This record gives sequence, C-alpha cells and structure tokens, in this order.
Amino acid sequence: MFNKILVANRGEIAVRIIRACRELGIRTVAVFSTADREALHTQLADEAICIGPAKATDSYLNMQHVLSAAIVTNAEAIHPGFGFLSENSTFATMCEECNVKFIGPRPETIDEMGNKVNARKLMIEANVPVIPGSDGPVKTVEEALTVAATLGYPVMLKASAGGGGKGIRKILSPEKLPEQFTSAQQEALAAFGDGQMYLEKIIYPARHIEVQILGDSFGNVIHLGERDCSLQRNNQKVLEESPSIALSDETRKEIGAAAVRAAKAVKYENAGTIEFLMDQTGSFYFMEMNTRIQVEHPVTEMVTGVDLVKAQIEIAFGEPLKYQQKDIQVTGHAIECRINAENPAFHFAPSPGTIQNLLLPAGGLGLRVDSAVYNGYTIPPFYDSMIAKVIVHGSDRLEALVKMQRALEELVTDGVVTNQEFQLDLIAHPAVISGEYDTSFLQETFLPAWKPEKEV
Amino acid sequence: MFNKILVANRGEIAVRIIRACRELGIRTVAVFSTADREALHTQLADEAICIGPAKATDSYLNMQHVLSAAIVTNAEAIHPGFGFLSENSTFATMCEECNVKFIGPRPETIDEMGNKVNARKLMIEANVPVIPGSDGPVKTVEEALTVAATLGYPVMLKASAGGGGKGIRKILSPEKLPEQFTSAQQEALAAFGDGQMYLEKIIYPARHIEVQILGDSFGNVIHLGERDCSLQRNNQKVLEESPSIALSDETRKEIGAAAVRAAKAVKYENAGTIEFLMDQTGSFYFMEMNTRIQVEHPVTEMVTGVDLVKAQIEIAFGEPLKYQQKDIQVTGHAIECRINAENPAFHFAPSPGTIQNLLLPAGGLGLRVDSAVYNGYTIPPFYDSMIAKVIVHGSDRLEALVKMQRALEELVTDGVVTNQEFQLDLIAHPAVISGEYDTSFLQETFLPAWKPEKEV
Repeated sequence: MFNKILVANRGEIAVRIIRACRELGIRTVAVFSTADREALHTQLADEAICIGPAKATDSYLNMQHVLSAAIVTNAEAIHPGFGFLSENSTFATMCEECNVKFIGPRPETIDEMGNKVNARKLMIEANVPVIPGSDGPVKTVEEALTVAATLGYPVMLKASAGGGGKGIRKILSPEKLPEQFTSAQQEALAAFGDGQMYLEKIIYPARHIEVQILGDSFGNVIHLGERDCSLQRNNQKVLEESPSIALSDETRKEIGAAAVRAAKAVKYENAGTIEFLMDQTGSFYFMEMNTRIQVEHPVTEMVTGVDLVKAQIEIAFGEPLKYQQKDIQVTGHAIECRINAENPAFHFAPSPGTIQNLLLPAGGLGLRVDSAVYNGYTIPPFYDSMIAKVIVHGSDRLEALVKMQRALEELVTDGVVTNQEFQLDLIAHPAVISGEYDTSFLQETFLPAWKPEKEV
Repeated sequence: MFNKILVANRGEIAVRIIRACRELGIRTVAVFSTADREALHTQLADEAICIGPAKATDSYLNMQHVLSAAIVTNAEAIHPGFGFLSENSTFATMCEECNVKFIGPRPETIDEMGNKVNARKLMIEANVPVIPGSDGPVKTVEEALTVAATLGYPVMLKASAGGGGKGIRKILSPEKLPEQFTSAQQEALAAFGDGQMYLEKIIYPARHIEVQILGDSFGNVIHLGERDCSLQRNNQKVLEESPSIALSDETRKEIGAAAVRAAKAVKYENAGTIEFLMDQTGSFYFMEMNTRIQVEHPVTEMVTGVDLVKAQIEIAFGEPLKYQQKDIQVTGHAIECRINAENPAFHFAPSPGTIQNLLLPAGGLGLRVDSAVYNGYTIPPFYDSMIAKVIVHGSDRLEALVKMQRALEELVTDGVVTNQEFQLDLIAHPAVISGEYDTSFLQETFLPAWKPEKEV
C-alpha cells in the first residue's frame, strides 16, 4: 500500500481522507493556505505544508505548489477530494509525469467526460439514454426550428463549447427561436470563439438521480445504488438521500446497469458518479459524469457499508475491487443534510465567524457527522460555506427523517449562523416527508413560502 | 406510544435514552442532582427536575424522589438505564403500583434472576449449563470435602445469600477447606444472618461471553448474538466486542439457544443479557443475568442494526418484537472502548475536572461516540468515571481495531486525564490483536507490564 498520501483539499473532505488514510496505515500530508493554519485538516495530518495565500487560486488551485509539496514530502499519491483540482486533467497529467499517483480516473477519462458534447456521443454509443436533442450541431435557424418541433417545446439551446451559462437559452415557443438563436450564437462566438449550437429537450418535472460507481484497473465496474439529490438551490444540492423513493425496482435495475455501461464505455477507474435526470414516467437521461468523490458519498456508504474513500485509495494503488456486484446490498435508508455557514434569512449570505459552544449531534445508532470544525474554530471567509454534513441511517426513510430531525435539533454552533433551521423546516415539509418533490421544488415552492422563525 | 418518559439516570446513558425517545416522538423528563445542573442530559430533555443533592443515595437512588418526579410531570414510563435503580425490584414494584410503566422486566423476574442460588436452580431446570457445583447447599465440612473432590480443586465456596464479596473463599486444596469453610460460614452468618454455603468449580482460564436477548410480553424471545467482555480490570469491563473471536459457529449457535432458553424460563420481557463463562474447550456456563440494558449494548447495535433502547421502549409499551430470530444477521465486527476520567498511571484514580478543547473522534464510516460531555463541561466527582464510549464497526475485526486506534488517537479532552493512552496500548497488544486473551489477561499480564509513555 502507499506509504504516504498528500491530501490536496481542505475542510471536511480533507479530514475525511486523512481519517481513511490513518485507518489504512498510510501517513498523510496536508496542504494549507495561510488562512487555514488552524484548520483541523492541518492539525490532523502527519505533516502539513503551507502552499500559499488564502485565495484558492494562489494555494489550493496552484498546481505547481500542490505538486511540489507532494514531491518534497515524498508523498506517493495525491487525493484531490472534490472541487479544486479534482477534475483537472492537466493536474492529473502533471502528477503522472512526476510519478505521483493521482487518486482518480486517468486524465483522458476526465477529458472525455468533461466535454459535454463528447460525453453525450460516448453515452449514445454505450446505449445509455441521453436527453433527446439534435443529432450533433444545428447550423441554421430553419434546422433548429425543425428539430425543436420534433423535440417539443420548451427546448434548451446550448453552445457545443459551452460552460458557465454562456450561450444557453431556454426557448419556450417557435416564435422566440430565431431571435434567441442569433443572440446565443453571437454570445458563444464571443465567449468561446465557436458558434456551434445544439438543442436539447427540457426534462421537467425531473428528479436528479445519480448512481455511484467504482471501477478498478482490471476493467471491473460495479454500481452502489442511487442517490436522489433533487433538493437543490441554485443547482447546489442541499439534502441527499439513498435509495430514491422515486424509483421502481425495475427502473433501479435499469439505471444501475446504464451507469455501469457508461463507466465501462470509458474504461473508468476509481470512484465516479453518473448523474441522470428522471421524468415522471420513470424514463431517465444521462446528464453528466462526475469523475471524483462527491460531497454526498456518505449516504451510499451508510446503506452499502462500503467505505468509498478507502476504495478509491485501494483502486489507485492497483488493487482489484473488493466487491462484486452481487455483494452490494442496500440496507435501510440514509439522508445527508449539508450544514452551511450561511444565513438563509438574508439571501443565504455566507456567515464566517468563530464557533462557540459547539455541539455536534452524536450518539445512538445510525448517526454520523463529517466535519472539520471544532470549538473555538474560526471559519475563514475565503472558501465554500459548507462546515458539516449530518448523515443519518434508519431502517426506513421515515426513521431516517426523524433521526435527522433529532440530530439537527441538537446541533449548536453559537457565533455562526447556519442553515440549520432551514434544513429542519425542509425535512418537516409534507412534500419532503412524502418524497414527492422534483428539482424545482426547493427553489420554486419551498423557498418562496419559507419564513425563518427566528430573526437572525 | 408513550407520550412522555422520565429518564432515571445521568451521563451518557441518560443522553442515549433521551435521544432514542426523541426519535420515537416521545417527550422526555430528565432528573438531576444539584451536581448535574449543567449536565447534558439535564439540558437535552424537554423537562428537567432536580431530585436532590449530589450524593446518589440522596438523588438518583432516592426512589420516592424519582417516582414523584414522574408523577408530577405526568410521565407514563420510567427508563432506569443501567446502575442506580435499574435492577431494583422494589422500585419496579413501586412504579407498577403508581401506574407508571417501568421500562424493564417484571419485578418478579428481577428477583428471580437477582438471587444467585435461585437463578442457578432455574437455569438447571431450563437445561442451561451452569458452573458445576454442589447440588444445593453443603451442610458440613465433610460434605464439602466430598463435593470438592468431585469438582476438582481449586473450588469456590460461596454463601447462598451472598453478595458484595462476603462469605466467599477460593479454596486451593483439601487441607485448606475445613478452616476456610468455618470462617466463610461465620462471615456469611454475620453479614446475611444466613450461614448456608455452596460450592462451585472455578472456570479458568475463561472468557466472559454474554448474549443479548430481547423478549416481549407475548412470549417471543430472540437473541442478538454475543459480546466478548473478557478484558476486565477489577471485574469492570474495559473493552467489549461483538462477535467473539473465541466462539466456533457451533458454540455460537448453542450459546444463543441456551440464552433464549434462559430468558424463556423466566418469561423474560424487555432487553436483558445472559452472562456466561466459557472455558478453553468451548464449554460455557451460566454466570448471571443482567435484567437491564448494558453499557456495552452499542456493539450489538452496530453488528445487528437493531436499536436496543428503542426496542426496550416499544416492548414496554406492549408492542410485539419487530424482529424474528431469522431477521437477526451479524455483519462485520464492532468494538467499544470505555473512556474513563481516571489516571491509569496513578492507580486509576478518578480525575474529575473541566474539559477543554474537547474533540470527540467523528466522521467516516462506522464510528460512533456515545457521551455526555461537551466543551467546558466539568465532570463532577460524585459518580462513575466513565465519560464516553467510543464504538467502531468494521468489515472485520482487524479493520475495527485499526479504526479504534484512529479514533482514540483523535480524542482530545484537555484538562481531564483519561484512560485514552491505556486503551491505545491495550488494543496494540499482540494478545488483543490476535484475540487470545482471557478474563485474567488485563489484570495479570497486561497491567503489570504496562508503562504509561507520558508522565501524567
């Protein structure tokens, strides 16, 4: 096994990885920005190296600094966590060139799945359902009108080279198409130097269903069931659960098989997630693949008993998968709530500060808190606002919901405003209790009606 | 279900019970002594009633005060936890008379199993192996010599009415018997007004194997596998695990069946534990029954997924068992280490004080900490020194041991000396790693050779 791993991240996921390494008998190197000198990941690792100023581009995103830290400490591998450099194929290639193992898929895989048009093409070839759309680019307004009529309005017009919301238009009717086609194309040209456009159907109402997969370097791929992440605000997941209440046994089987086909199509190595949108008829469509560990991985761990971070490390070291598909049993129900240092009563503004009287919920059966905070810890203002993940496991969904309520009620983070009350209200909403929600529910139904009890 | 339960205990078990009640939608009443005003159980319960001064006999053991607190708060049931009033049949009867449900077995059962000679007789009738011994009392030295010769030396001479170590003698050879018989009999007479004596074989070397059982008011009884609690100091358990590495599959089946027979013999209702001693040949002998929840119940919860405290409450309310024997599957391996505020380097002297910079190990898969401490909490000097239970669950025993090491290394309780280092050294001992230890190991092998690294 590796002797030493560098953890190229911060916050709870860095701590999570350090803990997994310790349990595997692997020494750890933390990297930290000047703002994270007192951070838990900096304290818990066997060694810690400062890699630059607070701003992420100067430290956690600085590839040379991170890689240098690995080289000077003789770390044999780098775990990138999520965010930061985790889906950066250039960084993965640099690691390879420096003979440091990147704990994640091969750089080519990151690229193949990172390019949306390419990923879509690969998925079609692998017989994985994709969102209905134009067969390649649409060149003219007339062609777009023809394709859109076939798909049915509303449709989404997208730039092939797209990203960051540029060159994207939601088109409600044929009358609006010509004008929007021209403006989107001009925007894409300006942004990417490429005016190629394509069309996709809009799946609505939809659930966000994603399938966790593990693949090893011997071509073995298994899936570990699905997660339902439909509760989102601004495309940010807020609460995730496994299994999904919206899947029939048949669909569950099909979506798992589709995810395995998707991963096999790119000879996927390591942990990854295939994200799908599912409509009300139970038809599901490939959306994208995340070629890394995800924030919500613990719900899968709780229902399957598989430690995904340890599996990532073992796979990266070249070990074959410890599990076959038939070994994976989903037991009970798990839910994760993200606790963010933010003020939901004030536009979810970030609320950095110093935590006092910290009480993380604990104890009893089926409760887990992944966090990097401690009493007296000052949350720096420079990074993501997530400070803890509360994860519960119950014998069924209702038990898990009630356990989550108990856990969230116990949480104390004096000095820092969090979305604790918001999450408590969310899990008490009839639509969440019944499981009848889609990706628009939180933003369009829950939030407009939500009133914080306490003025914060 | 009950609307409100009074929790007649303190510390982590009180908090554990309050949490289970919250998850069942039951309101809780805490009772507290004047020393426990700031205790977590006092803070977490919906209501809290002061029942007297710090000394336990004036508060937690004061039956009238506890029962009055239940009556004035309209609590419909009392959960006694462990210790204090949990095996007090007088208290259980008083509860019954006041129409407050005692969450535990019927008072008659507490008495039947509390009396050792009676329990032994019942077990023989139920075909549960008991430690070989005299068939009832031995009246004379001559009779004792005859029986002892049949049993084989060394033997244990015990007072039928015994307790608290009075009237007990370990007899190594026939020469020593006459003198020790007389002195033990006199001691028993003086202590209990009853000089009746009996003899038992000494099982040595032995492992302490106990079986968790659940029985409901409909006569259903199941067992939930065994716990190995052989690592003890002064008859106090220090580390417990489930399953036991010392059991063959066949013995495991037999001991489980014996425990169910034992419980059925007394029409046992609620959670209980049958404790056995097992010799090197795998023969096991009934030692005693604990008619309550035990400190080490979490290891059983971790391997079976059954919440024992919730089950206790449901059974007490009159519900049938949710599980049949075939539903109980033991998965993986769980270990519990008791964290005590004591100084192992100084005769394990209690070390009350104020906890600073508290960091309870957390995060990742399969780690649980049941505790009632928080940052800034002052441990009062009046009660048991146990402040936390660290429980881990791994796919196998080695994984669990390594996870425990990681967890214990993370624990920070500045301001209060604990047995953290002692536990770390214990789980690193080859005999513990290999599982080759008996009930004498900790006291006679480990402790004499143990040297604390830090001077505390």
